[in-house]
Amino acid sequence: MKNAVIFSIGNELVEGLIIDTNSKYISEKLKLLGYYVLRIETLPDRLDILSERIRIGLSEAELIITTGGLGPTEDDLTREAVALAIGRNIEIDKKIADELIERAIKYYGKSPESVVKQAMIIEGAKVLNNSVGTAPGQIIDIEGKKIVILPGPPAEMMPMFEIILEDLRTDDAMYTRRIKTIGIPEAILMDEHKDVIYSVPEITVATMASYERGVEVRFTGSINQKEDIDKIANILIERLGDNVYATDDDTIEDVVYKLLKDNNLTISFAESCTGGMISSKFVDIPGVSSVFKGAIVAYSNEVKKSILSVPEDVLNRYGAVSEECVKIMAKNVKEILNSDFAVAVSGIAGPEGGSEAKPVGTVCFAFANKNSVKTFTYTLRGNREMVRKRSTLLAFDISRRGILEWLKLVKNTRE
Amino acid sequence: MKNAVIFSIGNELVEGLIIDTNSKYISEKLKLLGYYVLRIETLPDRLDILSERIRIGLSEAELIITTGGLGPTEDDLTREAVALAIGRNIEIDKKIADELIERAIKYYGKSPESVVKQAMIIEGAKVLNNSVGTAPGQIIDIEGKKIVILPGPPAEMMPMFEIILEDLRTDDAMYTRRIKTIGIPEAILMDEHKDVIYSVPEITVATMASYERGVEVRFTGSINQKEDIDKIANILIERLGDNVYATDDDTIEDVVYKLLKDNNLTISFAESCTGGMISSKFVDIPGVSSVFKGAIVAYSNEVKKSILSVPEDVLNRYGAVSEECVKIMAKNVKEILNSDFAVAVSGIAGPEGGSEAKPVGTVCFAFANKNSVKTFTYTLRGNREMVRKRSTLLAFDISRRGILEWLKLVKNTRE
Repeated sequence: MKNAVIFSIGNELVEGLIIDTNSKYISEKLKLLGYYVLRIETLPDRLDILSERIRIGLSEAELIITTGGLGPTEDDLTREAVALAIGRNIEIDKKIADELIERAIKYYGKSPESVVKQAMIIEGAKVLNNSVGTAPGQIIDIEGKKIVILPGPPAEMMPMFEIILEDLRTDDAMYTRRIKTIGIPEAILMDEHKDVIYSVPEITVATMASYERGVEVRFTGSINQKEDIDKIANILIERLGDNVYATDDDTIEDVVYKLLKDNNLTISFAESCTGGMISSKFVDIPGVSSVFKGAIVAYSNEVKKSILSVPEDVLNRYGAVSEECVKIMAKNVKEILNSDFAVAVSGIAGPEGGSEAKPVGTVCFAFANKNSVKTFTYTLRGNREMVRKRSTLLAFDISRRGILEWLKLVKNTRE
Repeated sequence: MKNAVIFSIGNELVEGLIIDTNSKYISEKLKLLGYYVLRIETLPDRLDILSERIRIGLSEAELIITTGGLGPTEDDLTREAVALAIGRNIEIDKKIADELIERAIKYYGKSPESVVKQAMIIEGAKVLNNSVGTAPGQIIDIEGKKIVILPGPPAEMMPMFEIILEDLRTDDAMYTRRIKTIGIPEAILMDEHKDVIYSVPEITVATMASYERGVEVRFTGSINQKEDIDKIANILIERLGDNVYATDDDTIEDVVYKLLKDNNLTISFAESCTGGMISSKFVDIPGVSSVFKGAIVAYSNEVKKSILSVPEDVLNRYGAVSEECVKIMAKNVKEILNSDFAVAVSGIAGPEGGSEAKPVGTVCFAFANKNSVKTFTYTLRGNREMVRKRSTLLAFDISRRGILEWLKLVKNTRE
């Protein structure tokens, strides 16, 4: 198996101002491509340190990947550090420089001298086009090894990495299956199904429980264990039934989107404590407009009354966080926005606003279809952010289950 | 200044299953305590790699901090690796072992043999009590240097780190200032003001450009450079004027929130392409309900017409992505949700929907106050996510500038 070392570069990283998410993304991909990640090094923008660390990395690994340090400013030194580490020249590529200048003038009206720094290309490097930002990446073949230089912003790094994926694949490529569930606690899931989950010792099992994504079970093995892995995954999927909301790369919002789109149906939301998070996550999906009408973020009770017509009496008697309130919110937002389904959420995200009867984390949900409204109440753990993210996951899961139930009902009625 | 190397240990990290958040937390603290973080190394659970990397780290730095690898299972090897790296014995501490066994019996009814592994203490180490989980930490003084061994789960690591904070403080306590801007591209800002920004060579300058947060310039130096750093920061703040939206820890939504709260004013949003992202970000702030009425996510044209009363004629003649449309959206959402101000956003986030006249990235904004509505059009770069996040930043910035202008107007009228 080939070794890899990942370098994550920037003072903002070693000074703890931002979290490095690139290395997780890259190391997950590298594992599947068949690399053993010897280490990830997070380094400051210092030429001496960078060139020395890269030189050492290259002596130990077949693949070096760097992210960050490709900007136009004086502290962006990755290009120079790699050139220094491998003893190659670095020169400004006239064509790329012209493009950068043209682009700067188009966007800013003028081009500062420093932009051309991003056109500095190491001798023998292949240029990787940046489809999203300005700084191009580079890939260098050196004595049977590879050095890949990528930009720091994840949105620029990720599409560039996808382009070189096939170039990096080794003979030790791995196969993986991911099963995403909601509704069964991790410990119970793993205990009740351990006979299947651990049935082939060579297959690695990993589980991850998260308030944003539920419980994921992941099976990984070599590519010639594909058949066994698929078999185990399929048995588990069948056993867990409706609690499996997606497999592999799909998210819960993808699944809701596809269910609606395939059946030519629409949805809308009424959000209180989530404050637009459900809608925003749904709009992450390109093309969602065919199934998503819109939402009313009824953060104040005033808006719950004026737009969603929740009677003052209901708010006084049951409170804004009650199944009575969300029931009306869901029913009315469905009418107002003219959708087939609607979900309403109202809860106490904290840190203030809790009481003994309704502690922080109490969240009420409603799902409305053409005929009826179903309500649910959960008590969620964690801080404000965790409660809101978990509520968003649950809102999509309630949508998924509600739509599936509706489709079954319609099918049965037809038959 | 003393050097530090941080080791983040675990197969789950180098395999990309979880993101390392511990190192950000620790490196941010270390900087303030007066350490220069030479690097952060993320390593697999392998004794040979761990002991070698720790040995090298100790030869280069005065402080080594490890997180992770302190569990009871076979792959938890951090304790052994440190002992091996520094050539000291490691033995089970009888008292700690008894406590661990007692605890396991209390929680699980029995004690697996492996728990005593967590009682392995390196010769000469001071034990750090784990107030949240089981594995104790350790701190070792060796030839004027320190090795700190901490558990991996952030909830266990953080309180333990707080306890040793004072032990780690050096004479080189740091001082830092952060200036957060929007409106001037990074390269131009750094070029036009380099005379000030780089005027004291000993002061470290870092810049971060992000479509979510604009351009941040950060000055850092020793505590006795406080005067110089403040002076440089203040000159830059004055030069950049309204383009500085916040300093230090404040975010742009914090600034909008405080402006509204301090003046007893309210806001609402009409969101199309952002799809609830502006509202959701605002609701991240606890207590925002005093200034935030709510929002209408008018993702479909149907909702723009039915709820926000955008005339069909306007949509046909100018389109949903037009200053004419957002002007009506802002004016009407302000009326409907009964707020003092409103912001409306409509744009083409892509990847579909662009045209020659209005390419992907075209986003129209409107800000409404009691008297008037101002509109803006931007052409934003990047993919769907970047366009939506940048639009959210701009919506808050337009709010900030609009509220400031309104407050000036009111003040002038009064005088």
